[in-house]
Amino acid sequence: MSAHVLVADDILANRKLLQAKLSHEYFQVSTACNGQEAVDLARALQPDIILLDVMMPVMDGFEACEILKADRSTQHIPIVMVTALGDREHRLKGLSAGADDFLTKPVDDFALLSRVRALTKYKLVMDELRSREASGRRMGVIEGDDPNGQMSPARILIVDDNERQARRISLALKDDHLPMTIQEAGGLSGNKNTGIDLLILSLESKSFDPLRICAHFKTAIGTRDLPILVIADFEDEARGMRALELGASDIIMRPIDTEELSARVKTQVRKKRYVDAMRRRLDESMELAITDQLTGLYNRRHMLNQLGQFLNRANRGDGPLSVFIADIDHFKSVNDTYGHDVGDEVLKQFAERMRENVRPADIPCRQGGEEFVVIMPNTAGDVASSVAERVRRHVCGEPFRIDSGKGRLDVTVSLGVATTLSAGETEDDVIKRADEALYEAKHAGRNQVKSRAA
Amino acid sequence: MSAHVLVADDILANRKLLQAKLSHEYFQVSTACNGQEAVDLARALQPDIILLDVMMPVMDGFEACEILKADRSTQHIPIVMVTALGDREHRLKGLSAGADDFLTKPVDDFALLSRVRALTKYKLVMDELRSREASGRRMGVIEGDDPNGQMSPARILIVDDNERQARRISLALKDDHLPMTIQEAGGLSGNKNTGIDLLILSLESKSFDPLRICAHFKTAIGTRDLPILVIADFEDEARGMRALELGASDIIMRPIDTEELSARVKTQVRKKRYVDAMRRRLDESMELAITDQLTGLYNRRHMLNQLGQFLNRANRGDGPLSVFIADIDHFKSVNDTYGHDVGDEVLKQFAERMRENVRPADIPCRQGGEEFVVIMPNTAGDVASSVAERVRRHVCGEPFRIDSGKGRLDVTVSLGVATTLSAGETEDDVIKRADEALYEAKHAGRNQVKSRAA
Repeated sequence: MSAHVLVADDILANRKLLQAKLSHEYFQVSTACNGQEAVDLARALQPDIILLDVMMPVMDGFEACEILKADRSTQHIPIVMVTALGDREHRLKGLSAGADDFLTKPVDDFALLSRVRALTKYKLVMDELRSREASGRRMGVIEGDDPNGQMSPARILIVDDNERQARRISLALKDDHLPMTIQEAGGLSGNKNTGIDLLILSLESKSFDPLRICAHFKTAIGTRDLPILVIADFEDEARGMRALELGASDIIMRPIDTEELSARVKTQVRKKRYVDAMRRRLDESMELAITDQLTGLYNRRHMLNQLGQFLNRANRGDGPLSVFIADIDHFKSVNDTYGHDVGDEVLKQFAERMRENVRPADIPCRQGGEEFVVIMPNTAGDVASSVAERVRRHVCGEPFRIDSGKGRLDVTVSLGVATTLSAGETEDDVIKRADEALYEAKHAGRNQVKSRAA
Repeated sequence: MSAHVLVADDILANRKLLQAKLSHEYFQVSTACNGQEAVDLARALQPDIILLDVMMPVMDGFEACEILKADRSTQHIPIVMVTALGDREHRLKGLSAGADDFLTKPVDDFALLSRVRALTKYKLVMDELRSREASGRRMGVIEGDDPNGQMSPARILIVDDNERQARRISLALKDDHLPMTIQEAGGLSGNKNTGIDLLILSLESKSFDPLRICAHFKTAIGTRDLPILVIADFEDEARGMRALELGASDIIMRPIDTEELSARVKTQVRKKRYVDAMRRRLDESMELAITDQLTGLYNRRHMLNQLGQFLNRANRGDGPLSVFIADIDHFKSVNDTYGHDVGDEVLKQFAERMRENVRPADIPCRQGGEEFVVIMPNTAGDVASSVAERVRRHVCGEPFRIDSGKGRLDVTVSLGVATTLSAGETEDDVIKRADEALYEAKHAGRNQVKSRAA
C-alpha cells in the first residue's frame, strides 16, 4: 500500500535523503522545513504519516506534535519523531507530546520502511470509519469526542515460550496495564483470550511458529481487530517484516528498552480504542433513528420492526407473543392545565416507571403522544397481564413529581393486553386486539388492565 | 495480510496441493470435497476467499457459485473458479454464475498467490463496512438490498501510452461501458478524471512510470477508492506483484483475452458499486435520525442543530438569518372531526406544499404536531416574509385532498417571521420572536404572515 508522507526537517540534506528513500519505494512525499510549516501542511494536505524532526527553528517538533494531536482534523495522523541516537530525554518528551513512534538518526532504511509500512496498515479502515463519521457529524447525529484523559489499563496477552522473558515483559507493563503471560493463561486456546486489547508476540518462540500464530489471530473472526506487537531479534529483520505483512501492527527489537516497550504498547492501545470509539459512535448514531427523543424508549419505527420479527418467530413455533398498550388517563387535561413542559415531565417519568417494571426481555416503546406499547416475546397472556398490572400499580401508587420536583400530580394509566391466538396473525391483528382491550379498560373507568388474550 | 481460504475440490491430491501452497504462505485453509459442502462451510466459517473447482460430484462448482452469490451471508466472499486450461466454455459459465476470478489447472504459484492477495486487499474495509451495516440491520434502520440487475455502464479510463493498444482495449469494452483513453482525456491531470469507476493501467508504458501512477492514484484523496486493473507482461511478473502491493486491485496478462478483460472489468466495477452502496446505506441510516417520519422533512433535532450552526455563521459576519414558524390553523378540529388518518394526510400535504414553495437553500423542518419551522440562511426579513407569504397563498389557494382523494378540505396556515437583529443572539431569542409574530398572526384572525424582522 502506498501512502503520502510529510517530512519535516530544517536541514535540506536530511529532507532530500528521506524524500529519496521514500520516493524510491513509491511513497508520495511532501516536505516542510519547520514545525509551523508542518502543522499548516498537515491540515491542508492530510498526509497519511508525518516524520517530524525534533530540533527545528520557528517551532520545534514537540510543539508541532502537541498541536497536531490536539486538532481533530489531524489527530488521527500518525507522527514519527526523528531523534538523535540514544537521546532518551527527547524520546520521553516526544512521547508525552503524543508521538506514535520514533526513528533515530542516522535513519536506517529497514527501520524507516518497516515503521512507515506498519503505520499505513490500518489507514484504509481508519479512513473509511472517519469518512462515515464525517457524514454523521455533518448531519449533526454524531457529536462530541471521547475524553482524551488517562488511559484505563489494557488487557495484554504475552505470547513467548521463554517463560522468564515473558515474565520480564509482564513486569515492565504491570504498573499501567493488566498483562498476562501465555503460561498464566494456560495456553493459547483458553477462554481467557477474549476481551484482550493487545497481543505481544515474540518471534523467537521455538515451541510454535510465531508467524503462524500471527496469521491465525489476524484471520480468526473474533481476533482480527486485535493489534499485535511483535518482538524481533536484530538479526532477524526478515521475519519481522513478514510479521508486519501478515498483519502485525508494530515491532520492537531486542534487547527491549522497557520505556520504548511501554510507549509502543500505549500507542497500540490508544489506536485500538480510537477505532473502537468511532465504531461505537457510528452504531449509536444509527440507534438515534430508533429512539424516542423525549423518553429514551424505542420509537414507533422500532416497535413495528420488532413486532414483525417476533411475530414471525412466534408463527414459526416459538412460544406465544404478547403486547400491551398503555395510555395515560386524562393526559390532555394535564397539558391543558399545567402546560406542555409538565406534560413532557409526566411522559418521561411514566416511561421511567414502565421501564423499571417490565422484564429485561420486554421491549418498551413510545408509540406517540401518551400512548406506549410493550412487546413481550415468548410470553403467555396471563404473564403479560400481570406485568401490565405491575406497571399500573407503580404508576398510581405514588404521585408524579412535577415543576422540577416542587409539585405532585396523581397519574393513572389504562392498559390493554393481547396475545397471539394462532399462527399467521399480523401486526395489525395483535395491535387491534390490544386496542380493543384498552378501549374496554377506559370505558370500565380507567386505571385498570383488560386483556384479549387467548 | 493473511486470510482464510476455503478450497473445494473432489480430488484429494488437488486439495492437499493447494492447501500446502497456501499454508506455506501463512494462509489459513479449510477444505470441502464437493459444492454442497463448500456452500455449507462458507456459511458456517465465513472464509475470506473460496477456490472452487468446476467439476465435482453432488453439486458442481457453477451451482455452488450461484447459491453462494445469491445468499446475503456469503455474497461478499470472492470466488475463484478453478478450470481446465483453455476451457472457454467453463469460464463463460462461471462468469454468468457470478465468479470473481479464474485460475487454470495446473495451478501456477504466482497466479495463485497474486490472485488471492489481490482479493484479500479490500477485505479489511469491506469487513468494517459489513459489520457497521450489520449493526444497522439488527436495529432495523437498514433494510433491503440494492437491485442485483443489469449493471449500468462504467466510466473507465485507460492509461497506456501505446495509443493503438489503448484503442484496442477501449474497443473491447465500449459495448458495455464508457471507456476513454488517456489520449482522448487529454492527459492524466485533466478534469475528466473525476467520476470514473475504474482505471486500466498498462505496466508497459514507457513515457511515465506506471508504478508511480498507481501509487499516486492510491494516495491522492479523491482517487484512493478507485479500483485499478493493471495490464502486465508475462515476463514481468515482479512488476505486476509490486503494482498489487501498491494498491492495484487486479491484474491481467498480455496478450489480453478480451473476454477475460471484460469479466475482470465487470467484477471490479461490481465490487466498487457494492462498497459504494454500503456506504450510502450507512449514511442514509444516519439520515433517518434527522428525518421526520411522517412528512419526510427534517425533524426538530436537525432544526436545532442547523439553527445553531447558521446563527454562528451569521454572528461571524455572514448575512442575516431568518426563520419562520408555520402553524396550521384549527388543526385540532381536523383531527377531532375527521380522525387521525385525515390529520396525517393534511400534515403530509402541507409539508409537500411548503417544500415546493421555499427556496432550495431554505431548510424546512417539522417541529412537532402541526408546527413547522423553516430556517433561511443569509436572508433578510423582507425576503423571508415574501417566502412565508408564498407558502400561505399556496396552502389556502386550493383545498387539500383527503380520504385518499375522495374528499376536499380547506386548510389555512398562520406564519411568524423573525430575523437576527444583532450578533450574539441565541436560538431561543430568534425562535421566541418568531413565536411572538405567530401569536400575533393567530390573534389577528389567522391565515396571515406577521413578522418581527429588524
